[in-house]
Amino acid sequence: EENEHVVNSALDALGRDELKKFFYNNFVDNMRDIVDEISKDMIIPKDYIDFLINFYTESFASLLIDWIRNRAERDKEKYIKYISLTLFESIRPDLERAHEKFKHKN
Amino acid sequence: EENEHVVNSALDALGRDELKKFFYNNFVDNMRDIVDEISKDMIIPKDYIDFLINFYTESFASLLIDWIRNRAERDKEKYIKYISLTLFESIRPDLERAHEKFKHKN
Repeated sequence: EENEHVVNSALDALGRDELKKFFYNNFVDNMRDIVDEISKDMIIPKDYIDFLINFYTESFASLLIDWIRNRAERDKEKYIKYISLTLFESIRPDLERAHEKFKHKN
Repeated sequence: EENEHVVNSALDALGRDELKKFFYNNFVDNMRDIVDEISKDMIIPKDYIDFLINFYTESFASLLIDWIRNRAERDKEKYIKYISLTLFESIRPDLERAHEKFKHKN
């Protein structure tokens, strides 16, 4: 792909930490929107919501960098499916579990 | 604490990547044991199990480093509870969700 060269150059030039920060800053607002929307009628402490948003965004950024680094050996469709299953499809059940845990504590 | 100085020195001396690798190597076998035990009667592709073990171990290592770096401002008991809820209590539901997804595909 055309993008491949750009991404490789970015990875070389920025280094892992910088690229991770770049991805983090790009995705954290979207992640907050997703989590806020799903949890809007749930009783979960604000600081646990913040913890989760940080956790998901960090994880997603790490998985993306991991993918960039190893994409030559990987089945792209499968990797996308695994990321989706592990990360995005777990948001609602994670929040529901948290709601069950916290709702009686307030 | 006595350990505080040791951990701070390690963090300074090793750097984030080295310390993460150290935590990763320390925990990956335990994580594999936990995941293998929970999933032993489930139908989940071997490479998704490996993906999950890597994901959990990476996440745990990141959360530990995050905690070391910011522990002065944090409530330790609460942070441990949040890590446990996010990571360890999600392993069984994650695997059950994967089992539901994959069991009809074999």
